[in-house]
Amino acid sequence: MKINEKRLLSRLNALKGFTDTPEKGVTRFSFGEDDARAREYILEIAEAADCTIDIDALQNIRIGLKTNSPDKLTVMAGSHIDTVRHGGWLDGAYGVCGALEVLETLSENIAAAEAGDENAVPLEDLKTNYEVVIFAEEEGSNFGSTMTGSKFVTGIYKEADLDRLRDSNGKTLRQRLIDLPLNDEDDSIDIYSVDYFDAGEILWDFDNIKTMLELHIEQGPVLEKEGLSLGIVDAIYGMKVIEVSLTGVGNHAGATPMGIRYDALCTAAECVLAAEEIIKADDDATAVATVGKLSVFPNCSNVIPENVTFTVEVRDSDWHRIDSFMNAIIDKFRQIAAARQVKCDIEEISESAPFYLTKRLKEDMELRAKELGIPYKVMDSGAVHDACMIANFVDTGMIFVPSIGGRSHVPEENTNEQDIITGVQFLMDTVLNEMKTEV
Amino acid sequence: MKINEKRLLSRLNALKGFTDTPEKGVTRFSFGEDDARAREYILEIAEAADCTIDIDALQNIRIGLKTNSPDKLTVMAGSHIDTVRHGGWLDGAYGVCGALEVLETLSENIAAAEAGDENAVPLEDLKTNYEVVIFAEEEGSNFGSTMTGSKFVTGIYKEADLDRLRDSNGKTLRQRLIDLPLNDEDDSIDIYSVDYFDAGEILWDFDNIKTMLELHIEQGPVLEKEGLSLGIVDAIYGMKVIEVSLTGVGNHAGATPMGIRYDALCTAAECVLAAEEIIKADDDATAVATVGKLSVFPNCSNVIPENVTFTVEVRDSDWHRIDSFMNAIIDKFRQIAAARQVKCDIEEISESAPFYLTKRLKEDMELRAKELGIPYKVMDSGAVHDACMIANFVDTGMIFVPSIGGRSHVPEENTNEQDIITGVQFLMDTVLNEMKTEV
Repeated sequence: MKINEKRLLSRLNALKGFTDTPEKGVTRFSFGEDDARAREYILEIAEAADCTIDIDALQNIRIGLKTNSPDKLTVMAGSHIDTVRHGGWLDGAYGVCGALEVLETLSENIAAAEAGDENAVPLEDLKTNYEVVIFAEEEGSNFGSTMTGSKFVTGIYKEADLDRLRDSNGKTLRQRLIDLPLNDEDDSIDIYSVDYFDAGEILWDFDNIKTMLELHIEQGPVLEKEGLSLGIVDAIYGMKVIEVSLTGVGNHAGATPMGIRYDALCTAAECVLAAEEIIKADDDATAVATVGKLSVFPNCSNVIPENVTFTVEVRDSDWHRIDSFMNAIIDKFRQIAAARQVKCDIEEISESAPFYLTKRLKEDMELRAKELGIPYKVMDSGAVHDACMIANFVDTGMIFVPSIGGRSHVPEENTNEQDIITGVQFLMDTVLNEMKTEV
Repeated sequence: MKINEKRLLSRLNALKGFTDTPEKGVTRFSFGEDDARAREYILEIAEAADCTIDIDALQNIRIGLKTNSPDKLTVMAGSHIDTVRHGGWLDGAYGVCGALEVLETLSENIAAAEAGDENAVPLEDLKTNYEVVIFAEEEGSNFGSTMTGSKFVTGIYKEADLDRLRDSNGKTLRQRLIDLPLNDEDDSIDIYSVDYFDAGEILWDFDNIKTMLELHIEQGPVLEKEGLSLGIVDAIYGMKVIEVSLTGVGNHAGATPMGIRYDALCTAAECVLAAEEIIKADDDATAVATVGKLSVFPNCSNVIPENVTFTVEVRDSDWHRIDSFMNAIIDKFRQIAAARQVKCDIEEISESAPFYLTKRLKEDMELRAKELGIPYKVMDSGAVHDACMIANFVDTGMIFVPSIGGRSHVPEENTNEQDIITGVQFLMDTVLNEMKTEV
């Protein structure tokens, strides 16, 4: 079953236009105006393809084939359409457009089969349902918590989290959902749908789901560097994130001699370099450590920094290695701060254990890539994705395509057109194989 | 002539109450509501003491003795009442309350002399005028430009700067002055007074000014550490400030191996430590270097920092040393950035040459401190003050009192009560000496 390459690319390009920041990458936060426009665009495609639409209170969307039946298991594919600020056009959107392209291709096949087309895959060969899923608030751009939509469908997040999560204006997730723009009454499609909150209602019934597949850009440089077209994901890196707050003495930058300073920024600078050094000493070169967020108080050119707060992330595919690197980093931070007589408070803010995606799917995809002659590698994912949340409950697979220059979460994020197409056709083939076989 | 200690302390405590941020230090920006309340308080004192009040279009205030005459030269003392955000109660306010206390003490003496009190200093002994000056917008809290009021009275700033300087809302200084709250028509005192702008009208006539004195807290730890009560300022440190922008490659923190990162924050961390190391290698231990302001883009815990922008200040009493330290720092920054393949842009954003205050006043004050048995030291000032602007035009002196823990620009800013009193009495004696002698 061959995908429609032109249609795929036009969907991707259309989504790119739904952004708060044209010319400066794509900025599309969940529950914002451009999110609504993008949703409307997608729901219109679903309607045109005569599909079923289901939107839960968290605004996760599920779109199903018209032939889906409650008696059959479901094969799902999807990702998210929200972005970071000034992000790229492919992170999330690629997986959504890919899954939609599979949906439209399947719909056309069904229509052709119903019309008696002999070249179509017969309906009786499609033994499962197929659904596209679009998770809400994956990037955490509003609430600083990633994969919010997929955490609610799996019960990792519960009703209380609606009130715990707050956006930068202090508004809770619950309030943001209540405040969603009312749907146009004349409009046949509900872009947003919030009747009531019942976290139990949002939970998926995993007994009825057979497979979850997510197609995504690599967001790293490995595939491009090795000249490969496809990555088949094996392990998902786990991570620990800490927040470090260093408090020295804020003082006038002109009037305080160097010998009696307790400069929180100099202390932080030592810590940043220490974290880098400790992780680079790793012979396996798999672990990564990043200080991505750092703020200085009072942040005036003529005041010695009194407080610096920063995050440190450590990621690896091995939980014990994450722990041991993080402990080494924390020990070193405490030594550095003590030597400078600067107060050092460290709080663990999040952690997720590394794990493996489903072996059966990995092996099936490897075999397919070999048969098709697609240059691929089995690789680990340093990033965590929506599919990883689902992986605890059903068979789950992930497919990567190369990122040019390894860049992601930036306006320059891109993938060669041929790789874009190869990835979606590979998803199509994998979905079809899953649909053709019963459990 | 003895000051009234209780009155001085009550003035200082009253000013402390005019703050936007009670319990969190003092926040009083020029042209704000608490600035107006503080001005009203001071102007009422001036009226009660039967003094003349002059407010220029920049809102610099001059308060004169009722006996002042255009035929005499003027001895001035003063400082500012605006603060940084969450600043202390003494920076600026101490010099203003000290100069006001001298005014009130002189006014009382004049009244006593007029009433025939034999213990009063006779009017004919007071050969000059005396004025208190309160400069507007010294801290630069609104417009990011320090000593704005004193720069206008000296012609360093001109009419065009009214339109160049903008606050954080983008409003120009001119517009802020136009928008000042209208004075209550029933009120006898004009708290603010903006009839029209003529930068020429704001300029002081320095031919009629004999002396400028500013009393200030040290804002550093030197006097306290050496157990001294008074600092007599000799050189004012000069400084150079640069802004450094480092641009690496922003990328996903999980998906980018350590070996192929171009991390702007790790690069900045090396630079921060290099600046500290270079300046600490100074055997004289006079020069200081500070990275006070630093911001990270995009500043997300899971994105490798793409850009870091930070300021570096170098200060010393020797211009050549400032230059040579700054050049060494810049050279090192370029090496560090090149080694990490990170783009490094450096812009010089401001500089001021070091200079000496008036020798005659310094020697006079030294003699006085010795005679009175006050433990003092002649010292340099790492900070620049309003008096330093005036020093180019008339004889200028500065007096420091100790800062507890050397702390300033923070809520903890403080000075022992006895030191507060000693400083103001010393200012009183110095003013009186200047008034008793003709040029």
